[in-house]
Amino acid sequence: MIKVGIVGYGNLGRGVALAVSQAKDMECVGIFTRRAPESVKPAINFPVYSIEKLIEFKGKVDVLLLCGGSATDLPNNTAGILKDFNTVDSFDTHAKIPEYFYKLDKVAKENGTLGAISIGWDPGVFSIARMLFGAVLPNGNDYTFWGKGVSQGHSDAIRRIAGVKNAIQYTIPKEQALSSVRNGENPNLKTRDKHLRECFVAVEDTADKAVIEKAIKEMPNYFADYDTIVNFVTEEEVKKMQQKLSHGGFVFRSGSTTEENAHLLELSLKLDSNPEFTGSVLTAYGRAVARLSKEGKTGCVTVFDIPLKYLSPESEEDLRAHLL
Amino acid sequence: MIKVGIVGYGNLGRGVALAVSQAKDMECVGIFTRRAPESVKPAINFPVYSIEKLIEFKGKVDVLLLCGGSATDLPNNTAGILKDFNTVDSFDTHAKIPEYFYKLDKVAKENGTLGAISIGWDPGVFSIARMLFGAVLPNGNDYTFWGKGVSQGHSDAIRRIAGVKNAIQYTIPKEQALSSVRNGENPNLKTRDKHLRECFVAVEDTADKAVIEKAIKEMPNYFADYDTIVNFVTEEEVKKMQQKLSHGGFVFRSGSTTEENAHLLELSLKLDSNPEFTGSVLTAYGRAVARLSKEGKTGCVTVFDIPLKYLSPESEEDLRAHLL
Repeated sequence: MIKVGIVGYGNLGRGVALAVSQAKDMECVGIFTRRAPESVKPAINFPVYSIEKLIEFKGKVDVLLLCGGSATDLPNNTAGILKDFNTVDSFDTHAKIPEYFYKLDKVAKENGTLGAISIGWDPGVFSIARMLFGAVLPNGNDYTFWGKGVSQGHSDAIRRIAGVKNAIQYTIPKEQALSSVRNGENPNLKTRDKHLRECFVAVEDTADKAVIEKAIKEMPNYFADYDTIVNFVTEEEVKKMQQKLSHGGFVFRSGSTTEENAHLLELSLKLDSNPEFTGSVLTAYGRAVARLSKEGKTGCVTVFDIPLKYLSPESEEDLRAHLL
Repeated sequence: MIKVGIVGYGNLGRGVALAVSQAKDMECVGIFTRRAPESVKPAINFPVYSIEKLIEFKGKVDVLLLCGGSATDLPNNTAGILKDFNTVDSFDTHAKIPEYFYKLDKVAKENGTLGAISIGWDPGVFSIARMLFGAVLPNGNDYTFWGKGVSQGHSDAIRRIAGVKNAIQYTIPKEQALSSVRNGENPNLKTRDKHLRECFVAVEDTADKAVIEKAIKEMPNYFADYDTIVNFVTEEEVKKMQQKLSHGGFVFRSGSTTEENAHLLELSLKLDSNPEFTGSVLTAYGRAVARLSKEGKTGCVTVFDIPLKYLSPESEEDLRAHLL
């Protein structure tokens, strides 16, 4: 049995706990939290410990699945944890991945541990598609679309506007852009052409809706470059929408091998629960990290470095016989 | 530069030659054929040699891309070639893959060579999707659909019927089955539910079309378990259809992480030219085999064993920065 620990218990930690409970080759030594352990009621009956107890589990856990956020948790904590444990994380700040990689690679190699970074669906499953598609169809264009799904960053940005009580923002791929790519037209798509941003906003009674709508639509980086729809709704409606964590998206490679012959490769995901699916991907890579570490591998790795067979609990013989 | 050789020059060999000519990190030492070399006019101006000259290239080529068929060429020849060369092949007789693997693995390990088998889109890219999807969504069902595209085996079977001059058979996924899977209904699909077989047949003037149609529709293994449409057309029409080598298909994983939350993962390929795309996949795996062999890897490998980064001519740094 592979012994895993879960670090952090928000939506993603819950998704990981569910996935680990369904993996027949894994057992969970504990959930480690910054909160008071007795205040955490996990979906699965795993023991809950204070994060301060984590070090006592050194040598007793094969891999830690890190469920903190990319803004502060992972950049601040992962290097320290890697000194004593193997890890898998979902670091998704694309621009900072190279820097994060080198920092963790150094720590892991010095300490004989292994850390898989940027695991999930994007980065993660989508990265695999982009890399594989580009390698087998080198003459072509990549297109990645996200949604329909909630962008936490954009929802937070709306909530920071004065007079806004709560808000949720959906990123929606534009049908026309999807169709054009699917028709092999190889369109040159600007930011505005690819995604629509739809916002549901609950405001104070005294707030000026026109001012808030303008503030959202003209917000640089977040909304100014997009077509944005703003709907004013009640706090209850926003709260209800926040219960639903569905997401998804598409990766396309549209290219050709000769002037006559074009090819279209497409990966799509439709996910009822973003954190549950992401947790499931983290868990599969936890299996891979535990195995690779036993084989002596150290350092920092991504989805590009790990042979896919390590993700599955099936034997290599079974994989060749049934899935090849 | 990676030095490759191309063994066999039919449709697949032509596709590989086109792909190798577009790879900036590869050069082709030659095309090796059983035919008279001067009778082969390759699409790319690579040297053409008799297959008997192949052994003279031992030590002068990093990997051979084998473009023979799975019925006789590959089972009869690959083990012998692997004694002296690294190889990539597209062996696609699913039921015989385990046996083929063990035979080649032994030869390759004894001779310090590396052979990648069953490379293409199915087996190959589709196998990657089945394996990855199943690992990240263990609770679910797999569905693979092929087409619309030509089945050579079924076309051959029709041509063996007395009175048939020429024939082509298209495998077509049934829309209703695709929709049901896409709707997350997790249908239990029988052979007849998944694919339709449409045949275009040119017959002798004296042939009894009713008898031939019956012979096709009732043919065990090939057509009896399917809904089959038989169209009688002229030889010219069949010949024209045989010029077009488009194909494609779909791999789905439909499953759930909890009772409430279902997920649908889909990979689809739409290919104008089956052999050109397959040749492009073989070429990317040729790059991987050449590199892995230089690192000392020997034996037989499949898409499950090879980290994806080996497929790309880009550096690991660039892959992490741009594709992750």
